[in-house]
Amino acid sequence: MSASAFGSISFDIGYSWKDMNKISMVRKTHAEKPFVKCSMKSTNHNSQKTVNIGVLGASGYTGSEVLRLLANHPQFGVTVLTADRKAGQPIASVFPHLSTQNLPDLVSIKDANFSDVDAVFCCLPHGTTQEIIKGLPKNLKIVDLSADFRLRDISEYEEWYGQPHSAPDLQKEVVYGLTEISREEIKNARLVANPGCYPTSIQLPLVPLIKAKLIETRNIIIDSKSAVSGAGRSAKESLLFTEVTEGIYSYGVTRHRHVPEIEQGLSDAARTKITISFTPHLIPMTRGMQSTIYVEMGPGVGIEDLYQHLKLSYEDEEFVVLLEKGIVPRTHSVKGTNYCLINVLPDRIPGRAIIISVIDNLVKGASGQALQNLNAMMGFSENLGLQYQPLFP
Amino acid sequence: MSASAFGSISFDIGYSWKDMNKISMVRKTHAEKPFVKCSMKSTNHNSQKTVNIGVLGASGYTGSEVLRLLANHPQFGVTVLTADRKAGQPIASVFPHLSTQNLPDLVSIKDANFSDVDAVFCCLPHGTTQEIIKGLPKNLKIVDLSADFRLRDISEYEEWYGQPHSAPDLQKEVVYGLTEISREEIKNARLVANPGCYPTSIQLPLVPLIKAKLIETRNIIIDSKSAVSGAGRSAKESLLFTEVTEGIYSYGVTRHRHVPEIEQGLSDAARTKITISFTPHLIPMTRGMQSTIYVEMGPGVGIEDLYQHLKLSYEDEEFVVLLEKGIVPRTHSVKGTNYCLINVLPDRIPGRAIIISVIDNLVKGASGQALQNLNAMMGFSENLGLQYQPLFP
Amino acid sequence: MSASAFGSISFDIGYSWKDMNKISMVRKTHAEKPFVKCSMKSTNHNSQKTVNIGVLGASGYTGSEVLRLLANHPQFGVTVLTADRKAGQPIASVFPHLSTQNLPDLVSIKDANFSDVDAVFCCLPHGTTQEIIKGLPKNLKIVDLSADFRLRDISEYEEWYGQPHSAPDLQKEVVYGLTEISREEIKNARLVANPGCYPTSIQLPLVPLIKAKLIETRNIIIDSKSAVSGAGRSAKESLLFTEVTEGIYSYGVTRHRHVPEIEQGLSDAARTKITISFTPHLIPMTRGMQSTIYVEMGPGVGIEDLYQHLKLSYEDEEFVVLLEKGIVPRTHSVKGTNYCLINVLPDRIPGRAIIISVIDNLVKGASGQALQNLNAMMGFSENLGLQYQPLFP
Amino acid sequence: MSASAFGSISFDIGYSWKDMNKISMVRKTHAEKPFVKCSMKSTNHNSQKTVNIGVLGASGYTGSEVLRLLANHPQFGVTVLTADRKAGQPIASVFPHLSTQNLPDLVSIKDANFSDVDAVFCCLPHGTTQEIIKGLPKNLKIVDLSADFRLRDISEYEEWYGQPHSAPDLQKEVVYGLTEISREEIKNARLVANPGCYPTSIQLPLVPLIKAKLIETRNIIIDSKSAVSGAGRSAKESLLFTEVTEGIYSYGVTRHRHVPEIEQGLSDAARTKITISFTPHLIPMTRGMQSTIYVEMGPGVGIEDLYQHLKLSYEDEEFVVLLEKGIVPRTHSVKGTNYCLINVLPDRIPGRAIIISVIDNLVKGASGQALQNLNAMMGFSENLGLQYQPLFP
Repeated sequence: MSASAFGSISFDIGYSWKDMNKISMVRKTHAEKPFVKCSMKSTNHNSQKTVNIGVLGASGYTGSEVLRLLANHPQFGVTVLTADRKAGQPIASVFPHLSTQNLPDLVSIKDANFSDVDAVFCCLPHGTTQEIIKGLPKNLKIVDLSADFRLRDISEYEEWYGQPHSAPDLQKEVVYGLTEISREEIKNARLVANPGCYPTSIQLPLVPLIKAKLIETRNIIIDSKSAVSGAGRSAKESLLFTEVTEGIYSYGVTRHRHVPEIEQGLSDAARTKITISFTPHLIPMTRGMQSTIYVEMGPGVGIEDLYQHLKLSYEDEEFVVLLEKGIVPRTHSVKGTNYCLINVLPDRIPGRAIIISVIDNLVKGASGQALQNLNAMMGFSENLGLQYQPLFP
Repeated sequence: MSASAFGSISFDIGYSWKDMNKISMVRKTHAEKPFVKCSMKSTNHNSQKTVNIGVLGASGYTGSEVLRLLANHPQFGVTVLTADRKAGQPIASVFPHLSTQNLPDLVSIKDANFSDVDAVFCCLPHGTTQEIIKGLPKNLKIVDLSADFRLRDISEYEEWYGQPHSAPDLQKEVVYGLTEISREEIKNARLVANPGCYPTSIQLPLVPLIKAKLIETRNIIIDSKSAVSGAGRSAKESLLFTEVTEGIYSYGVTRHRHVPEIEQGLSDAARTKITISFTPHLIPMTRGMQSTIYVEMGPGVGIEDLYQHLKLSYEDEEFVVLLEKGIVPRTHSVKGTNYCLINVLPDRIPGRAIIISVIDNLVKGASGQALQNLNAMMGFSENLGLQYQPLFP
Repeated sequence: MSASAFGSISFDIGYSWKDMNKISMVRKTHAEKPFVKCSMKSTNHNSQKTVNIGVLGASGYTGSEVLRLLANHPQFGVTVLTADRKAGQPIASVFPHLSTQNLPDLVSIKDANFSDVDAVFCCLPHGTTQEIIKGLPKNLKIVDLSADFRLRDISEYEEWYGQPHSAPDLQKEVVYGLTEISREEIKNARLVANPGCYPTSIQLPLVPLIKAKLIETRNIIIDSKSAVSGAGRSAKESLLFTEVTEGIYSYGVTRHRHVPEIEQGLSDAARTKITISFTPHLIPMTRGMQSTIYVEMGPGVGIEDLYQHLKLSYEDEEFVVLLEKGIVPRTHSVKGTNYCLINVLPDRIPGRAIIISVIDNLVKGASGQALQNLNAMMGFSENLGLQYQPLFP
Repeated sequence: MSASAFGSISFDIGYSWKDMNKISMVRKTHAEKPFVKCSMKSTNHNSQKTVNIGVLGASGYTGSEVLRLLANHPQFGVTVLTADRKAGQPIASVFPHLSTQNLPDLVSIKDANFSDVDAVFCCLPHGTTQEIIKGLPKNLKIVDLSADFRLRDISEYEEWYGQPHSAPDLQKEVVYGLTEISREEIKNARLVANPGCYPTSIQLPLVPLIKAKLIETRNIIIDSKSAVSGAGRSAKESLLFTEVTEGIYSYGVTRHRHVPEIEQGLSDAARTKITISFTPHLIPMTRGMQSTIYVEMGPGVGIEDLYQHLKLSYEDEEFVVLLEKGIVPRTHSVKGTNYCLINVLPDRIPGRAIIISVIDNLVKGASGQALQNLNAMMGFSENLGLQYQPLFP
């Protein structure tokens, strides 16, 4: 086979070297105030893209992760980036690693022009998002990555977040975006509340098992381990390298704000109120989350029943993967990807089982699932922009 | 206060600058083949020390940790170091960080001269230790850090370690060295089996509670997180930096070899057979171990009862510390020290409690507790050589 | 804009949800002995791919990195994977993180069927590769990631590698694959010697400056810092997590095997023999490499001259990026990508400059540049399979 | 040898178990508002200590490191701890790892009672220290760990720190505390400016070589690598775990504030103005610093001359250690200790040498050297409280 044989093929995701020059010329013409980059080819370009995306709150980790994923999305092009305190700056001044992409400068939300925008990822902090989404044009499709719309019961929001819900009407139309569980509602939704990272890692394995009444709803004990990026990018002493590295500790024991979200999802599945034991731990790593879940099986139920039911539940799914029997999921296998790996393991204590699930907290636990949801909401294949394999080592 | 006021004080752990020169001269005269160090003052010296110590298996982490601790022990001086595959080498060729101490060269066990040795720390691998200890002089006090003598029931040893016990007679005289629990037997012991790291972190909080029948003996669920040094220094692919960093995974689920040791200790306390759920996790850090333990309290028992009983149990102990109510123990607070920090926390599920304990796996979980035991066996204050405060950050 | 508007678009890199089912069916039919994965959709598929690739030595990090990159290559499909000691195993038993791809099982090289293979990446250890490549079919295009063919002078190979070169005839046809410097020769090559990681990070900034006589050829001082993955996956004590984390040290001072490769490249550029000072350091991180290079500028030359010349040299390149003035390259900005970021900084000492370059040692420093080279050799756009943006944080 | 033989020995650093009980009783009586600890024995006690120490700025890392070292100091007892923003809190609320010590609560500086205090460690931020030290009682011995008094030339202070020096009179009496170089002046000093971490690691090897005119004073190129704790404990985005781990970068190229301090020391040694090239790098580790120094040797000078001169210079020093020829210093070997390890290595380029030095930035680079200085100022053996061996792994 000779190289020349490929000369006239038009590639899916490639462009010929010659085209690159042209694209670059155009880019260089328009980019009058480069901040960080120089003498570089753009590697994404919006010319062929058909959907205009805004990212609100682009200076945090979930925002930048959306941008990483969209760099290889064939249809979604980024046209608006907001970050109120960094307005006017190029994104590369906030995230140097984004300097190799050709992205718009940051603007404040109030100055953002949404007239050409089709959909937004809302990556803003909890507590501020309800007001902001209320003010957005009604034609926008929205995936909200904050916790502000995840709790159906607004009194529960008030109890756990210490402030009244300021958009109760919007709350009514919200679809909770655990993609594999609520796919059909998501497809028709305008506003999706993207699940939290812990709730995603816990509900994906437990919801099918609870629905099928294979496990008891009492004494569900969840010991979760999270990477540090889950805490975001705000400058806190407790998140300094020196405070985190080479140590582990539990935080928010019994009081973590993801508790009501998890209990809401599990209770829905059980059609009865479930109270869980949930202990999150902070681990000295950047990305990744493991939930080790200890459950009692129903009378007459065995490990094999749990395994087969999960297999059946997820065999048509691309991103939720039940491993071969006996293989323990590990966070390394999902780093940078949208996968959730699951397995069921026997316990020494008869009648009990151990379920382990792992995700990348920033992808399936945040920006990846958000993109999966928006793909579904826009009628695309869910995996667009999500076809990354794990970065290992 | 003038400096001269101190001129004639004789210091506890210091020696005057002038004395150091003399010591150094002597050292330099005898040390004809220095390997790594040069032009350096010795910082420990055996002249005043009254007990001669041998360390068998000095090329592993528990061996080198014994040496770190003994460097500041006022009575124990190291006179024999063995490492069969490194025999003839200075210890600094195996552990460069020990080059600043003045230690004997490595010899093979068969060439070691035990005639002047009073006590040994046996830091050899599991499986080989029974034979070696059988061959040691009977007058030696021995603390064995391997698992070879921890299980009273030799059939259980065979089951979990896959080989018959080769020193069943010795096994009968062994004392299991969980210091705070078996102090009196340890004082009179000749051969102490030093507990494993997981068993130490788990038994210290649970044994008193089980003895007092404050918690149920069923459904004890233990989710432990260990640093990598617990796996030792052998060159395995799974322990490479690249394979460990930035990830977490569970290993030996239900099958970890520490299970029978833990169940032996808890069953003794309960005077009935206990089966536990035990899931260890490997964390990307060097030292430290946390056990998060989920228990059911007995009828009518509350968190406060557990707390008060642990307080009572350990209030006279230096190294087992119950923290103030609500304070979560963290591994950073024990790094490099012999402390075990414990607390009891309420669970969301009524009737349940969460117990968290942390240790440095190489100190209280291995070499530190071993030294504490030998101090007790030799009639010394238990804390000699163990008065380190945590290295943080 | 409604979702239905996209209904009939055929996507570049996506496939519809329905197609995925079919592909998965096929895959499941053929995969009779799954090892790790289960109930999972394949995410790559070779049906549309036109070039069959073999990866020799797929059980090391450069091999698995080739597989990560090829997962999103539109033309290259993997049909042969070899790993002699792991022959017969699925790749997922060696690299669990690859279980989400649909890849062939491992075979030994002697059992590999190259009849349908168009090109191979040779990811074998130094010293064994010359013999193996001699035995491969002559029609194969080969990119060799080992050091076995990098030194033009076979006597120099013998001197630094301690064994005679066993394929001197092949050596003559080898093209050294520093893509941006030798692009035209690479396009016509059959056998490319892929550069080492250090040499890549050093030659990319220095070769243009030396060619233009902007810097002195004497006293070039290179202080490089490498991640641990550069040492490969072999189980060595010195690479254990416990031995690497929380420390730094220099290794191979003056004797590192990359020295002759670097000096060969720089001497070629200068058309005179150059001797460098080169000190590599091992850093506790997985991926990434920084070379901090201290040079004397030629008479009358200033920082601005160096900057402008590098700008001119690389302004049409996608993967070599000169940053804006004053911006310091950092390894975080290239993690998982094929970029080399460069900048020139002033020194306090008049007449001197500091040049900093960063790469991901496994991508631009190994598998990424290898793929870039094979793309060029096969007549494709160089960036196919390489359009990853950095994974940060 | 029987255990009873030790019954009546009075130990240097131990206390009998029985005494511990009494001490603990006393402590518990007085400690009315414990914050974190409970049911714990105190492990240090001031009863035998003869010097009262204040630590100003105890809520930072250098402050807490002073406290770690003093825990085993036989003469220095801590009686005052200040931290203005944390005044009124127990130290354990700021540093949980200090809860196992029996330390006074934090007070603000203005409320601190210095009447019984003999000496203070001043661990306050740069820029505020001059004013505070001006206000302290004149009888106090002071070691200042900030940079405020390190530069003899107050105009240079103003240039690099951007504000005028506010205590020029005090500056005149200051002794620069590089212990091994200025020991005699330090012994007689009242106010010592403790050197910075970079300057310590660089001056210790270079000052003797420059004084002896063995190396050229031009083109001294210093490539330093620092752990993150050197940046202190303030909550900055750039120091977050997620921003630091798994990456390396150079900062403050040519502009780092330690430059004038280094140049001051080297110029003093040379008796002529020296301008250096200095590039610091931030490494993802907590403690440790390596300086790799590239120098030109004088005419006719060889590596052996440098080696022998350093050997002669430091052979009577406990804390500055020249390693055996060919052994490369590594930061692991100094972690938690006051050592500075040095070696001289040949360069490939004739006439040049590579000097490597390593320290723990928080010990010899800060609090350890500060204690060494105060020991000297008070007439004690310099090594009191500093006899720690490295914590490895």
